[in-house]
Amino acid sequence: MAELKNRQWLLASRPDGMIKESDFRWNEATVPSVADGQVLVRNLTLSFDPTQRGWMSMDTYVPMIPLGQPMRGFAAGQVVESKNPNFTKGQLVQGILGWEDYTLKTETRGLMGLQKLPSTDPILGLSLLGATGLTAYFGTLNVGQIKPGETFVVSGAAGATGSVAGMIAKLKGCRVIGIAGGAAKCSWLVKEAGFDGAIDYKSEKIGEALKTHCPKGVDVYFDNVGGDILDRVLARIANGARIVLCGAISQYNEPGMLGVGPKNYFNLIPHSARMEGFLVFQFAKQYPQAIADLTQWHAEGKIKNQIDLVEGLEAAPKAIINIFSGGNLGKQMLHLSDPN
Amino acid sequence: MAELKNRQWLLASRPDGMIKESDFRWNEATVPSVADGQVLVRNLTLSFDPTQRGWMSMDTYVPMIPLGQPMRGFAAGQVVESKNPNFTKGQLVQGILGWEDYTLKTETRGLMGLQKLPSTDPILGLSLLGATGLTAYFGTLNVGQIKPGETFVVSGAAGATGSVAGMIAKLKGCRVIGIAGGAAKCSWLVKEAGFDGAIDYKSEKIGEALKTHCPKGVDVYFDNVGGDILDRVLARIANGARIVLCGAISQYNEPGMLGVGPKNYFNLIPHSARMEGFLVFQFAKQYPQAIADLTQWHAEGKIKNQIDLVEGLEAAPKAIINIFSGGNLGKQMLHLSDPN
Repeated sequence: MAELKNRQWLLASRPDGMIKESDFRWNEATVPSVADGQVLVRNLTLSFDPTQRGWMSMDTYVPMIPLGQPMRGFAAGQVVESKNPNFTKGQLVQGILGWEDYTLKTETRGLMGLQKLPSTDPILGLSLLGATGLTAYFGTLNVGQIKPGETFVVSGAAGATGSVAGMIAKLKGCRVIGIAGGAAKCSWLVKEAGFDGAIDYKSEKIGEALKTHCPKGVDVYFDNVGGDILDRVLARIANGARIVLCGAISQYNEPGMLGVGPKNYFNLIPHSARMEGFLVFQFAKQYPQAIADLTQWHAEGKIKNQIDLVEGLEAAPKAIINIFSGGNLGKQMLHLSDPN
Repeated sequence: MAELKNRQWLLASRPDGMIKESDFRWNEATVPSVADGQVLVRNLTLSFDPTQRGWMSMDTYVPMIPLGQPMRGFAAGQVVESKNPNFTKGQLVQGILGWEDYTLKTETRGLMGLQKLPSTDPILGLSLLGATGLTAYFGTLNVGQIKPGETFVVSGAAGATGSVAGMIAKLKGCRVIGIAGGAAKCSWLVKEAGFDGAIDYKSEKIGEALKTHCPKGVDVYFDNVGGDILDRVLARIANGARIVLCGAISQYNEPGMLGVGPKNYFNLIPHSARMEGFLVFQFAKQYPQAIADLTQWHAEGKIKNQIDLVEGLEAAPKAIINIFSGGNLGKQMLHLSDPN
């Protein structure tokens, strides 16, 4: 195989607080040859996810990204060359790949491995049918245990996971209220995504708005943001409420990270309520059913797959900053190249 | 019936911060005559419980205690006169009664009602077989879902509910570590209550001690105290951990109450863990089985019913202050009179 040029963004420094463009460094390298057991993937579509903020500065459920190495991200790709019996040339895959044209994978199993892409459409496969949609699916159904007629509140509601979580709750018969920043997002939630109501945290008092929208209290809260909004919702929970902890994007860029605890956690006691964290990987055995359900709901038009797409590898740093400043509507993705 | 003298402690002021003796006022009244539907109870034994701090200053799962009325408390008593078909003279009962010789009950059902005492021993019936033991039972088994071989940590471990929770976890095959204040309590936990280890929060660094005692992390944490200890345990949870929220005694007397949230709550996400509150009343239908189990374990000597008993109604204010200053070993109770 001819020598392949590989454009890439390296992690140049560990962010302290908000991610800056200077935390990344542009690099042009060549792709090393493929050794036994390895798989070379050409990246097609990049996904931008709040969890990447953790990878940049600490060990989490995966090891921290080494400085000077390519920035990692969930991505869809196509196998260019495989010396691993489980993968074949031309196959569409997804996994934790990199902000680069090509990623050479040595680990091919587990969290840092490669999975078959569940669609011939790299965008659909990486978003609604990938970690984003699966997180929304298991968070609402398995962790949140939503029931018809319940009041379901979701924050980061116009974002990737939040919007899908709300649409799943809606199709399962919940009253769905979304919390998002700005009038445009709130309008989209009600007019396009089918939510029953929306709260603009930038212009409304959240506590009072929750009282108005959820007069009987909140049965299930799908939390993507943490911080003050989590605390306000805790003050309005119904008996037997479930708080699904998916993320805490409001806190990820705080100096020292996660400095604020939800003081109203105590309200869980008189309401016999719970707050539960999860990682989508724990439901791996149930992925096939979830992907089948999501595929069907999407085909029936019950769930929209809202994508905020940017073009070209150069745009990657701006795209990740966008999700932390709330610039995206739906899932932030980057189109890099097309499958053969 | 001859006119009965009724000595009582009235709630004189709502505490701001720590309860003071001056929040109560001694009074001597006479018992009013019993009207249709009412039950007159002679109080035998008073229980002192952290939840009373809430009743003194706010509406909780029961309405706030009115100023100038008798201080409320869980108590065991004997029916002196009944004009209610569900109760008969001489019967032993328990419920939310008062700091007084006699309590006239108009409400006889529900949380503010009267229940049959599950023992002929008013102390045993009101402690291990009452709300204290039941809270420990359902908190460990139903909410905590303890499994043999798991590491179980309990705070307020030398207190009423904490000590029973630890002993239940121990007899179910858990490794049990108690957190308590002072060497005497810690020694009691290991030598008398059969715990595998104890941490003295007054003299040890909790984070480091947890690391030593729980090298594989904490599977179940039964929290009676909230505050900094909850946060330290959150930093040490194992995958799939359950945090049972029973109370937050460290916070009840804080000005403004409950000002500190557990900033490490975020750790619930990467560990797919949960934090769950409960009120013992939600398990009311399962009380008979729980009382049967607790009675048997007590008879077999597997659970000690450790009581810190004071004598005479005059001692009530000091006794409640004692539980917030950590003066008690086991359950704080007051002996008022004996059944006929």
